[in-house]
Amino acid sequence: MNASEFRRRGKEMVDYVADYIEGIEGRQVYPDVEPGYLRPLIPTSAPQEPDKYEDIVSDIEKIIMPGVTHWHSPYFFAYFPTASSYPAMLADMLCGAIGCIGFSWAASPACTELETVMMDWLGKMLQLPEAFLAEKAGEGGGVIQGSASEATLMSLLAARAKVTKRLQAASPGLTEAAVLEKLVAYSSDQAHSSVERAGLIGGVKLKAIPSDDKFAMRASALQEALERDKAAGLIPFFVVATLGTTSCCSFDRLSEVGPICNKEGMWLHIDAAYAGSAFICPEFRHLLNGVEFADSFNFNPHKWLLVNFDCSAMWVKKRADLTGAFKLDPLYLKHSHQDSGLITDYRHWQLPLGRRFRSLKLWFVCRMYGVTGLQAYIRKHVQLAHEFESFVHQDPRFEICAEVTLGLVCFRLKGSNKLNEALLERINGAKKIHLVPCHLRDKFVLRFAICSRVVESAHVQLAWEHIRGLATDLLAAGME
Amino acid sequence: MNASEFRRRGKEMVDYVADYIEGIEGRQVYPDVEPGYLRPLIPTSAPQEPDKYEDIVSDIEKIIMPGVTHWHSPYFFAYFPTASSYPAMLADMLCGAIGCIGFSWAASPACTELETVMMDWLGKMLQLPEAFLAEKAGEGGGVIQGSASEATLMSLLAARAKVTKRLQAASPGLTEAAVLEKLVAYSSDQAHSSVERAGLIGGVKLKAIPSDDKFAMRASALQEALERDKAAGLIPFFVVATLGTTSCCSFDRLSEVGPICNKEGMWLHIDAAYAGSAFICPEFRHLLNGVEFADSFNFNPHKWLLVNFDCSAMWVKKRADLTGAFKLDPLYLKHSHQDSGLITDYRHWQLPLGRRFRSLKLWFVCRMYGVTGLQAYIRKHVQLAHEFESFVHQDPRFEICAEVTLGLVCFRLKGSNKLNEALLERINGAKKIHLVPCHLRDKFVLRFAICSRVVESAHVQLAWEHIRGLATDLLAAGME
Repeated sequence: MNASEFRRRGKEMVDYVADYIEGIEGRQVYPDVEPGYLRPLIPTSAPQEPDKYEDIVSDIEKIIMPGVTHWHSPYFFAYFPTASSYPAMLADMLCGAIGCIGFSWAASPACTELETVMMDWLGKMLQLPEAFLAEKAGEGGGVIQGSASEATLMSLLAARAKVTKRLQAASPGLTEAAVLEKLVAYSSDQAHSSVERAGLIGGVKLKAIPSDDKFAMRASALQEALERDKAAGLIPFFVVATLGTTSCCSFDRLSEVGPICNKEGMWLHIDAAYAGSAFICPEFRHLLNGVEFADSFNFNPHKWLLVNFDCSAMWVKKRADLTGAFKLDPLYLKHSHQDSGLITDYRHWQLPLGRRFRSLKLWFVCRMYGVTGLQAYIRKHVQLAHEFESFVHQDPRFEICAEVTLGLVCFRLKGSNKLNEALLERINGAKKIHLVPCHLRDKFVLRFAICSRVVESAHVQLAWEHIRGLATDLLAAGME
Repeated sequence: MNASEFRRRGKEMVDYVADYIEGIEGRQVYPDVEPGYLRPLIPTSAPQEPDKYEDIVSDIEKIIMPGVTHWHSPYFFAYFPTASSYPAMLADMLCGAIGCIGFSWAASPACTELETVMMDWLGKMLQLPEAFLAEKAGEGGGVIQGSASEATLMSLLAARAKVTKRLQAASPGLTEAAVLEKLVAYSSDQAHSSVERAGLIGGVKLKAIPSDDKFAMRASALQEALERDKAAGLIPFFVVATLGTTSCCSFDRLSEVGPICNKEGMWLHIDAAYAGSAFICPEFRHLLNGVEFADSFNFNPHKWLLVNFDCSAMWVKKRADLTGAFKLDPLYLKHSHQDSGLITDYRHWQLPLGRRFRSLKLWFVCRMYGVTGLQAYIRKHVQLAHEFESFVHQDPRFEICAEVTLGLVCFRLKGSNKLNEALLERINGAKKIHLVPCHLRDKFVLRFAICSRVVESAHVQLAWEHIRGLATDLLAAGME
């Protein structure tokens, strides 16, 4: 395909993309296909000679779309949102064309420098403490990771390296394995599964702190675990506090947990993957209070800030802690400015070596929406969640299961788990809307997450009427 | 920005992308900017109200392009190639529009199923042993990772989990830390820095095996290290063999190393990040002989197979080894088909949870080029490398430093390292072409890698004339 054909096909694709998004409401949100549907539809091996482009395009609707779960449908209320906006898509086209691999400053200075400045923009929008920003030429700064899982893992590894160095300095001869055996990390029992995974990868114990009746990690429970573990000779070194848990969007008590971490010399990482975007609104910023106690902070603009996946924003107070964990400098990656102290080689901040020019998306989105536009977007979603919440409250057969703070509503029919499992099965079976469940303690709960960029009050109303109707059928069938 | 504005701006961006790529030869390959150039050019914080799109577009040429290292310029001969093609860019536009996060089958069946089939297509193009393919409903299969670094880390972690379980089953009461302390992994002293990093992350010893005079890891050196370590009570568990090392594109001797790994029960991972693409050509397939001994194999279509970053292809013989290392199943990620045995939840195969619909790029590229088109592309690059090699051979002042097998030529002026450092400095200072160096043993060596999709014989000739001219100046100045 040459440039002139790309001009033609690219413009057709722009129209296809716009058509898809404009028409997404008309597509069934969850597909009808069964596992294994796709393989029989395509050849068993790659063609020897080129196919025709027209055939590929017609296969998109024939083969791909029937198997797509439409995350951007206004009837998609599952998981958490994944962001999508036209400005981010334009930026991604540019990113693909430049196609640099920005592992070092020299590999593409613009890629590194725009990222540093965009992370400052974003940090200021959240009113992060200055220590996290790069612009003051302090010790902190931000980086774009691929996902919150990677940010959690990077901070755990940095914390592990830091405590190991400290202990080995105090007791020369102490092996790394001897340290590792005693290290213990903590998170709430509501933390995301990726936190447990980070512990497994890092080879350290990770203990779940029982959350309180609002599903929040509190000082008392953390302190109790700490004392018990210290008495048993373990070395507490790392805490993940979650702001906006996946199950029910609860908030660990940073202002309680933070001081304990600082006092005990434990690294505090904050995972605000979903909720973080809301902190750009002054009325939600208080949820971030206590961030000043943290060593690292992360949220995903690719969830709720209109920046298409992947763009996971992470800040550290001391970038040397992050880069010090694994800095390796083979000659083929060295460059003349490296030791000047002026530049950032982001490869030391992340797990992979390669990295795309992802800050372009942030730049386009911040500029095309403006802070006020982004705030309005967040507010609209929160308002829609409260609208759904009020519907649930008005129906005495249902109950709200956790406080609605942002865009997620946890609800259920009063009654057994079996009843609610049956309700969810009917909802997802009907495929008019799509939801996923969670467990809150021993309760099976339905999660209603405001997700789509184009979701409106009318969709939420329709969704509620649909759920209510299915519930009525179910209860009429005698289920309790 | 609404759909109709996106249609307009998207088409303009398609033209900008085509213009950029068509005109890339006219841009200076390496930028003139100094560290910190960008920050003064843009506001210190995000705009409150939206900017005009026209302003963003004009800032691309004013602010971004002056700081871009043009990886796709035909005068870029640095690092290794990163792929770029029009079909892959079209697929990425579609990927952005669908915007699903394919962590499980249910999160978007098409995303998972196309990936499984595309990995089979690719595996067959490489003539991988059937055990690595998914189609036979065996135990193997492929997955798209973000980078070779992640593939290496995932395989090390899987190997670590597997050996730990085995040892703990044999000696109940053995702690994980006690195992970890004794584990030892091996790679050639020519392996990529990400291998060392994987060892650091995994908390295991990683030993560098001295390579032979062709920079290849051989049986004898590996066996020697093994015996020494076993005698010292260590537990060898993991070997990374590299096909196409970063420094000089050397090849570890798989047919020697493989049987040792199998005999000793060590996991063998093959990192063919760069070279792997060439194995689709029958005349280079012999370089992969011995892959049948491996547990996992990885190469990067995003390097040399015209699939834009990121797309790192990884296969395992037993997918249960990979998924078994960290399988965690919170309720919000469960779905009805999960335990049917029919489906793949790729989140268990990788480090992050989220994942884009990257197989679309493979599908578009394989179909638009066909296998013959991709083979022709590889062959052209290899031929250009040999052309450059023959230029070097013809000039008695220069020497070739490693066998030229694929698209990389390692060369230097006969003389001191200082002389060659000065030559490289002049080359990169002139900014007509861009190269990076490497060390081969104690020699400072220049790497000339064929990178661009549009590089032709004329560019290679110009590059060589330019290098020769700078060398003449340097030698005339009396340097030796």
